Amino acid sequence: MNILPPGSTIGILGGGQLGRMLALAAAQLGFDVCVFTDEPDSPASRVAARTFVGSYLDSAALGDFARHVQVVTSEFENVPAHTADALIAAGVRVCPNPRALAVAQDRFDEKSFFNAHGIATPRFAAVASQGDLDTACVEIGAPAILKTRRLGYDGHGQIRIHGVGDAAGTYEKLGAPGILEGFCPFEREISIIAARGADGAIAFYDLCENEHSGGILSRTILPARVGAAVVVHAQQAARLVLEAFDYIGVLTIEFFVMRDGSIIANEMAPRVHNSGHWSIEGALTSQFEQHVRAIAGWPLGPTTRTADIEMVNLIGDDAHSWSELAADPNARLHLYGKRDARAGRKMGHVTRLKRA
Amino acid sequence: MNILPPGSTIGILGGGQLGRMLALAAAQLGFDVCVFTDEPDSPASRVAARTFVGSYLDSAALGDFARHVQVVTSEFENVPAHTADALIAAGVRVCPNPRALAVAQDRFDEKSFFNAHGIATPRFAAVASQGDLDTACVEIGAPAILKTRRLGYDGHGQIRIHGVGDAAGTYEKLGAPGILEGFCPFEREISIIAARGADGAIAFYDLCENEHSGGILSRTILPARVGAAVVVHAQQAARLVLEAFDYIGVLTIEFFVMRDGSIIANEMAPRVHNSGHWSIEGALTSQFEQHVRAIAGWPLGPTTRTADIEMVNLIGDDAHSWSELAADPNARLHLYGKRDARAGRKMGHVTRLKRA
Repeated sequence: MNILPPGSTIGILGGGQLGRMLALAAAQLGFDVCVFTDEPDSPASRVAARTFVGSYLDSAALGDFARHVQVVTSEFENVPAHTADALIAAGVRVCPNPRALAVAQDRFDEKSFFNAHGIATPRFAAVASQGDLDTACVEIGAPAILKTRRLGYDGHGQIRIHGVGDAAGTYEKLGAPGILEGFCPFEREISIIAARGADGAIAFYDLCENEHSGGILSRTILPARVGAAVVVHAQQAARLVLEAFDYIGVLTIEFFVMRDGSIIANEMAPRVHNSGHWSIEGALTSQFEQHVRAIAGWPLGPTTRTADIEMVNLIGDDAHSWSELAADPNARLHLYGKRDARAGRKMGHVTRLKRA
Repeated sequence: MNILPPGSTIGILGGGQLGRMLALAAAQLGFDVCVFTDEPDSPASRVAARTFVGSYLDSAALGDFARHVQVVTSEFENVPAHTADALIAAGVRVCPNPRALAVAQDRFDEKSFFNAHGIATPRFAAVASQGDLDTACVEIGAPAILKTRRLGYDGHGQIRIHGVGDAAGTYEKLGAPGILEGFCPFEREISIIAARGADGAIAFYDLCENEHSGGILSRTILPARVGAAVVVHAQQAARLVLEAFDYIGVLTIEFFVMRDGSIIANEMAPRVHNSGHWSIEGALTSQFEQHVRAIAGWPLGPTTRTADIEMVNLIGDDAHSWSELAADPNARLHLYGKRDARAGRKMGHVTRLKRA
């Protein structure tokens, strides 16, 4: 794989906050950034050298984009397969491997992939009809969660099934092919942010302990309150996934930690992740710089954590507290430049560090 | 003064690396950035939401720029007086105070200003003719340095006078109104980065110890190897200057430290400064974020230093070592996106931190 020198242009699919923070990290290393997004006036485009606004299905627009960049990455996993195909056809490298994007887009394929690589998941079954759902409810038992196989995020497209009696008519409500997942009575939720370089080197960040609210990540702390075996198992799982996909870039896997200390994979994100935002101030190399390094063919940077961390998301109206946060000497404030503070929308985050 | 909420647009005069790093810091706080520069394809413009390319003397272009921003700042001190006047006439706030820019543009006015505020400088005299120079050489003695009053930077426009006999014909070589400065046999060079908020609050960063090579800053280390009295005197001087100008933003003063521990002001920069680049990783609030906070009317952030620092500039061909630097786990690499590595051009910098 060729190594991109500074001055090369990195293409980013998607214009949200992850793209914005990737663009800021790329700029620090001397790269130009070109964003492709279907949204005019996006947060990422306002810090990029150039933006193409178009449909992810428009091969001509994608081809034009491809001619202006030396590598393409994505800030979201739901990139249509057609998009990656069109970019590759136009002769540009796409990182990470589009196979990883494809698997991560489908909850059934994702969990099947985990199991095929010896990584435990909740019990699950594909549900393509009410009949499937009824059968799955009996097999998996309640409580369980019915999710769309594709395009769910932050708790959208999920229906909780409290008892087997709840299932009647539920498939119709979901309105799309689904997956029923057994509920895991977990003790805590963690994630691992890992990176693999073009040379095959792998680096892990310290485990993140995550709290969700309404299906949306609300708070991440480090160190995660888990034992050494959990770290080993999470790293093993991440390594298996990175190597299975010949993955280049940053990858995230979320796990449930059970009372017995075992871990169960919930989902993976083939990208930088909200639970890794602390790394901007709290690690020697941020997850964003790490991803840029990997896809540019540069050596990975050190992931050493330099403090204890609390990262809190600013969701919707939370962002209106910006002036108090700006006055808090312990708060490192990040705002994403989104125009409206809609409910459930990630507007920014705050990182608090406590140095040893 | 009004407080700018996130989503406001900050105008930056100048498209170089200081503008680029200011723009990155502004983006982190949720601001949009609009750059005005006379240089197409500038480093700052490639991370800004919008760029106006035009002459700093074009009132119409400046007026157009002014209508798109809520405050204007500058990444260089040699902003023509006309530029600030045109912006203010167009109704936009200019930070810092254009009086500070004006004084900093003229080495004679600058040193006169220092002296008027009780801040020691080298001996100096205005030189507008060869006759002036001959007289000044006798008064000040040799060695001395003849500098242009205006528009010099990084050692440009400077002629060293080793003995009084050297002076013959030298004024003509300078080719512009000058200032003769007595040579200071200093022990070391330091700078202080200070900030003043719109509320009058003042914050100081730890003193920087600087090494120059060929008139260009090559290396900064912290802590500076100076005693507590030097810190007190440097902070006193910075406070006097900040308050004299009702200054809002980051200001830098460079000093010579003499063998007896006294300090002598060399020059001031009414802006973020190369010797403060370490603050990106090494302080809780970077000088760039601090400047953005100040001009936006936000409270200043904490300036606490978190490590011992070495910052090395990458000048000209130094930037070709990017791949070795990228592989050095102790080097935090910053590249500015400049297209050609011309001799004497600041291409990037590297910060190394040693935590206690």
